[in-house]
Amino acid sequence: MFQRLGLHTARSTSQRVACFSSSAARLGPPKYVKFDWEDPLNLESQLTEDEIAIRDTARDYCQTSLAPKVVDGWRTEEFNHDILPEMGKLGLLGSTIEGYGCAGVSNVAYGLVQREIERVDSGYRSTSSVQSSLVMHPINVFGSDAQKEKYLPRLAKGEIIGAFGLTEPNHGSDPGSMETTATEVDGGFVINGSKTWISNSPVADVFVVWAKCKWDGKVRGFLLEKGMKGLTAPAIKNKIALRASLTGSIFMDTVRVGQDSLLPGTKGLGSAFECLNSARYGISWGVMGALEDCLHRTREYALERIQFSRPLASFQLVQKKLAEAHTEIALGLHASLQVGKMKDEGKLAPEMVNLVKRNNCGKALEHSRRLLDVFGGNACSDEYHVGRHAANLQVTNTYEGTNDVHALVLGKAITGIAAFA
Amino acid sequence: MFQRLGLHTARSTSQRVACFSSSAARLGPPKYVKFDWEDPLNLESQLTEDEIAIRDTARDYCQTSLAPKVVDGWRTEEFNHDILPEMGKLGLLGSTIEGYGCAGVSNVAYGLVQREIERVDSGYRSTSSVQSSLVMHPINVFGSDAQKEKYLPRLAKGEIIGAFGLTEPNHGSDPGSMETTATEVDGGFVINGSKTWISNSPVADVFVVWAKCKWDGKVRGFLLEKGMKGLTAPAIKNKIALRASLTGSIFMDTVRVGQDSLLPGTKGLGSAFECLNSARYGISWGVMGALEDCLHRTREYALERIQFSRPLASFQLVQKKLAEAHTEIALGLHASLQVGKMKDEGKLAPEMVNLVKRNNCGKALEHSRRLLDVFGGNACSDEYHVGRHAANLQVTNTYEGTNDVHALVLGKAITGIAAFA
Amino acid sequence: MFQRLGLHTARSTSQRVACFSSSAARLGPPKYVKFDWEDPLNLESQLTEDEIAIRDTARDYCQTSLAPKVVDGWRTEEFNHDILPEMGKLGLLGSTIEGYGCAGVSNVAYGLVQREIERVDSGYRSTSSVQSSLVMHPINVFGSDAQKEKYLPRLAKGEIIGAFGLTEPNHGSDPGSMETTATEVDGGFVINGSKTWISNSPVADVFVVWAKCKWDGKVRGFLLEKGMKGLTAPAIKNKIALRASLTGSIFMDTVRVGQDSLLPGTKGLGSAFECLNSARYGISWGVMGALEDCLHRTREYALERIQFSRPLASFQLVQKKLAEAHTEIALGLHASLQVGKMKDEGKLAPEMVNLVKRNNCGKALEHSRRLLDVFGGNACSDEYHVGRHAANLQVTNTYEGTNDVHALVLGKAITGIAAFA
Amino acid sequence: MFQRLGLHTARSTSQRVACFSSSAARLGPPKYVKFDWEDPLNLESQLTEDEIAIRDTARDYCQTSLAPKVVDGWRTEEFNHDILPEMGKLGLLGSTIEGYGCAGVSNVAYGLVQREIERVDSGYRSTSSVQSSLVMHPINVFGSDAQKEKYLPRLAKGEIIGAFGLTEPNHGSDPGSMETTATEVDGGFVINGSKTWISNSPVADVFVVWAKCKWDGKVRGFLLEKGMKGLTAPAIKNKIALRASLTGSIFMDTVRVGQDSLLPGTKGLGSAFECLNSARYGISWGVMGALEDCLHRTREYALERIQFSRPLASFQLVQKKLAEAHTEIALGLHASLQVGKMKDEGKLAPEMVNLVKRNNCGKALEHSRRLLDVFGGNACSDEYHVGRHAANLQVTNTYEGTNDVHALVLGKAITGIAAFA
Repeated sequence: MFQRLGLHTARSTSQRVACFSSSAARLGPPKYVKFDWEDPLNLESQLTEDEIAIRDTARDYCQTSLAPKVVDGWRTEEFNHDILPEMGKLGLLGSTIEGYGCAGVSNVAYGLVQREIERVDSGYRSTSSVQSSLVMHPINVFGSDAQKEKYLPRLAKGEIIGAFGLTEPNHGSDPGSMETTATEVDGGFVINGSKTWISNSPVADVFVVWAKCKWDGKVRGFLLEKGMKGLTAPAIKNKIALRASLTGSIFMDTVRVGQDSLLPGTKGLGSAFECLNSARYGISWGVMGALEDCLHRTREYALERIQFSRPLASFQLVQKKLAEAHTEIALGLHASLQVGKMKDEGKLAPEMVNLVKRNNCGKALEHSRRLLDVFGGNACSDEYHVGRHAANLQVTNTYEGTNDVHALVLGKAITGIAAFA
Repeated sequence: MFQRLGLHTARSTSQRVACFSSSAARLGPPKYVKFDWEDPLNLESQLTEDEIAIRDTARDYCQTSLAPKVVDGWRTEEFNHDILPEMGKLGLLGSTIEGYGCAGVSNVAYGLVQREIERVDSGYRSTSSVQSSLVMHPINVFGSDAQKEKYLPRLAKGEIIGAFGLTEPNHGSDPGSMETTATEVDGGFVINGSKTWISNSPVADVFVVWAKCKWDGKVRGFLLEKGMKGLTAPAIKNKIALRASLTGSIFMDTVRVGQDSLLPGTKGLGSAFECLNSARYGISWGVMGALEDCLHRTREYALERIQFSRPLASFQLVQKKLAEAHTEIALGLHASLQVGKMKDEGKLAPEMVNLVKRNNCGKALEHSRRLLDVFGGNACSDEYHVGRHAANLQVTNTYEGTNDVHALVLGKAITGIAAFA
Repeated sequence: MFQRLGLHTARSTSQRVACFSSSAARLGPPKYVKFDWEDPLNLESQLTEDEIAIRDTARDYCQTSLAPKVVDGWRTEEFNHDILPEMGKLGLLGSTIEGYGCAGVSNVAYGLVQREIERVDSGYRSTSSVQSSLVMHPINVFGSDAQKEKYLPRLAKGEIIGAFGLTEPNHGSDPGSMETTATEVDGGFVINGSKTWISNSPVADVFVVWAKCKWDGKVRGFLLEKGMKGLTAPAIKNKIALRASLTGSIFMDTVRVGQDSLLPGTKGLGSAFECLNSARYGISWGVMGALEDCLHRTREYALERIQFSRPLASFQLVQKKLAEAHTEIALGLHASLQVGKMKDEGKLAPEMVNLVKRNNCGKALEHSRRLLDVFGGNACSDEYHVGRHAANLQVTNTYEGTNDVHALVLGKAITGIAAFA
Repeated sequence: MFQRLGLHTARSTSQRVACFSSSAARLGPPKYVKFDWEDPLNLESQLTEDEIAIRDTARDYCQTSLAPKVVDGWRTEEFNHDILPEMGKLGLLGSTIEGYGCAGVSNVAYGLVQREIERVDSGYRSTSSVQSSLVMHPINVFGSDAQKEKYLPRLAKGEIIGAFGLTEPNHGSDPGSMETTATEVDGGFVINGSKTWISNSPVADVFVVWAKCKWDGKVRGFLLEKGMKGLTAPAIKNKIALRASLTGSIFMDTVRVGQDSLLPGTKGLGSAFECLNSARYGISWGVMGALEDCLHRTREYALERIQFSRPLASFQLVQKKLAEAHTEIALGLHASLQVGKMKDEGKLAPEMVNLVKRNNCGKALEHSRRLLDVFGGNACSDEYHVGRHAANLQVTNTYEGTNDVHALVLGKAITGIAAFA
């Protein structure tokens, strides 16, 4: 064959044999396996045993312990203090980190866990993403040994809660224009500024805050702690989405911190983006979980709900909605899996994450909304869950880079031209 | 970690070590690779050396020999008799078949080749798909040894041309209602009926024709040959798409054939669907190639074309179009790759193919059209190629199962309810 | 000219003169008026002075009195008992009805008022729609003189509140399958059944309830009153949309009513549909008001919000969102205006209402969501209002006929074939 | 009523009476008219008798004489020299102009005629649009009496053909950057430059060419004639759309023209835009005609085509496509009607035309494509016409301002900020 393909390669017999014997299995009328609509392209076949075990543990916890809490969490907007410790106990926090009591699992496994959590609620996934990707990850990557020792074990157990302060009231998509500053003073720094839409901030014990350093104009990360003078973190209430997670501001009015509060490895805004990159990777898995839950619930509703003497599921217009959501889930999961593998193999390019974060969030939002329509009037009730997911997914499509901003990041990668400004 | 995850598994030390050492590579600030916009999620890393070599051979041939022919082929609607022999020489016809002078490559390799051919034109890919998936494949799978010996080697070389006659003038999406019949007569059969929209039929030497057998009502395949009395296959001209491939009808007026014309392994309509399944898998790769060509050409045009004193590529509205096509290509290719792997590993479910055929065709059509708009008035010229692709892709989105019919196939797989009728 | 057009018509000189003199105004380079983006196709020019005056009165009330209540109304889900009396005072309830203290305005004027109310909130518009179109309208059209005298003046003043009970827990899109029954008993009827997703029901004084009459199988309307034995109407709380209006169930357990509770003019399900037709017409105007509010707020935000050193409003991707919402508003309003005129002139066909209800609701929903994305993280705050509108509009797109059901109604009108079942 | 509405207006009794008597007609259960799916919102009721007569004349001509020519016209790309004289005979050329043998009809009537022509083919409409809006209109508005006398009567009869040269090879969306120049020389001017994608140019007798005047940098229009030395206008062949109309370039190599070739009223690029504005208004009607033809043909096909033992028209997925195209036609036509009325009444703002041109072209393109899918494999045949319309509509959506450029024009009108550059 290779000669006919014009290739002049020297291959050993064993290679040829392998080639032939593998293709021999394809002779004769092909045998098909039964289609599993819940795993249409056989994602399972691409996972390791460990990854499957971790995923199953997370799924079991989420469906058993987390799911029953969500309606109440959404209604009351109250932070549930049990959740992070429970996740910590199972090794779900900072799980890709080696040591410090962390599980040291693959990035694929981390993604699978995010999917399970967000299958229940995007807010719960946000709470845990912040802890893992936006607090533990930067401490692990940019922190000193002392900082790691001090914070990581307790964060991993969920004993203390972290928050990540980058976004400011006037600077969302463009954090480079941030107004928060760090000034060098005797024995440390003074931080001034305010941050908003910060997940976990009202209950956080430790804050990774990003500030522009007056002495050289560079952005660096600082570790602040609850109770510091001048630091307040009030909650933002009456949110129309992500109500099961807590969001707030961080106000810093002449907050004095020591030298040891600086994350020594942070070097400019790129370090903050590194954290976002990690979090976005997890989001790309998470939102697919949310959309999967929408699909499963809508399918079940459509099978049970009879109109015009037949189940909604028998309507062509309903089947098309189900089929399109179903396809996007399959595509999105396999794309995130590939990114996870590249991350695990050290072959990640950051734009891969922009691609899957943008695509998966956008598709999850769009299709959760289409599925919601199947519920008719019942869409309005939080007891059918899909409306809650759809509301949440509007936020996930926007935070950590809006859909449009990611399109422009990709546009720049494709054309070489920045079109933001 | 596994104990904390609540798992009571006995794992060997070596497994643990493997787990830890692989994760050790993840310690420290991650290193990124440069983003390759032409292979955004690193498909290359998932291919074998052989697959890459075959792909490169095909790409070279397509860009060197095929691409220069396409504008003229489109304009004249004339069949180019050089192409199939050229492909045959390179081992591109019936390439997954073992023996009979075929290359015996993996299904992934087969998909990669279809992508390269359709990068030039969907019509050329159609011509070769029919030969490989709809003629050689059924002969190989359902044919007698004598049939295989007689036809496969010559089809593989492109010495003779095949056509596949399933669709009838009144039965497109619903071939089960076909009107073509086979009647048993002394020493053989008589075939009556007509087929339409048959690729290659006007130049075909051998026809795989499906007919309802009068004696038991079952659909079976028959091998007819050019020149048989009562058999005509006129061309359909003035097509608005796929003009570089030849399409026609097959009229069978009391065509007498011998016993040996029956494909003995065919057992009902399912056998015809088996062929379509194989072809659709290749289409799912092919259309992504066409969309890639649209993306590359549009990107280049947008970089060169200056309006309002800056390149079109610097416009946000243009970048969004590029970015979205780019993402869909990545998703579609990785999904088809996964299906190809499952096919190679004997884990294919037919609905996997419905999923990728439908998705990739629909997305290729939609995004080729969006990209076309970037060309402004020049969209109308066939010299910019994207308009030709977009016209072709309307057909690929429809043939071998319309987008809606595939949605209902998937809908049935998800809900268990058929909504066709 | 008409001879050249081949027309042999006898026209008077005055007609010709009129024709020529009107066209004379078109000679010379045309003069343009300044574009008014808030009324892009000059809807104002199509309204009567009265209609403008009524619209302005409603707008003033809504912006002055209603708008300040809405954030609190949404947060608490509490019914505000001031609103209907305030509307009544201004003549906004049952306003198309002649007599009984009603204003007797045109249907166009009625539509303009709904637009102003929903510019504030779809829930407030729902509350008033039910009172006007679903309670006062059927009493006026199908009621006896005694019923009209008893209820209409008080309903017009907002002294009493009405509710409309058609939808049942198991029968949304298909009310013909309703399970609520009326049985004839000595001196009246007994009503049994339950209704759900009923606006205003928990605070309603009078209920227009539809039941299948056991004696002949026909659906008829009945007037029930609060406090009747066996009648309860609990609220449905924790809605994810329309939170500023009150929604509940109606449970009827052997409710005895007199002969005079029957709406004598109701004759089958068509009478209920007549009410829905009236309400849907108003919805088609209302949702455009909501989308207008989204557009105005998004425009203002985009002008004020600076990112990458320039206002969001200067981004192409933002301008496209604004422009598309803006166009759909113009199209939708002019279509509803045309339907209103046809209604006023006795030229209405019911499907006209299906068309504008479906289109305007669908477009309002779609574009409110696109506009919402401009707000980035702030989309999540109810203080920016657009998220609230978008959540509400999901319900308006579903209630009184889902988008898909209206598509099938139109599909039937176009093809003559019913595809519901 | 008005007192209750808080209005203190002095109205005469007769006004009140009129108000009441008109509303009296609304009393009692409303009577409905039968729905006419071909005119869903009763456009007919908004037209004058003259407008209806003109429309009917045009429709009769188009269906009788034009429609039979179109398949051949598309296949051969040959210009049919009978068509403009036939249109001239019926008064369809330059029909809004007073005098010079023109019909002097309303702008609404003009729009209705464009709709009828494009119901047959966008290319035929383009041919006539250029003659009327882009050649006769500027001569009438910007020309001297001598120019009007010389050209208008012959153009009106279709004896001579006009072309409009604005677009250049390097300047499509941004004509302000044009490179064609006019230099003042003894007794006239010298024109140098090239124009492309010019409808009618290869057969044109008179060319309205726009050039930048070297003496003051302003753009002005010039009238050039076939046969002038240095002027050539070769055809562009092998177009993938608008094949029934002729398109070409205009090359001007030191073309000497007299003083009288200058269109004296032209004052900068705005004068060219005035012509485009007029043409775009007609396009907004025309494309709705094309989409109507698609709808009618698809409906008929779907009613006749049986699959799975029932007509395609009974499929929900098909009905939705029909219903959505149908709605957009109604909305688009009523919007264009409103713009036409404003134009007739001297209340036109140019952006109104941007709005309807953009919307109607975009919707016609989108929905013609969706309808095309109903044809399955037959979509590929030009004998079903819808594929031809869809191909044409891609061009109409782009020429005379791409969809995106119009979005930015509207975006600027809404925000006050130009985002082109």
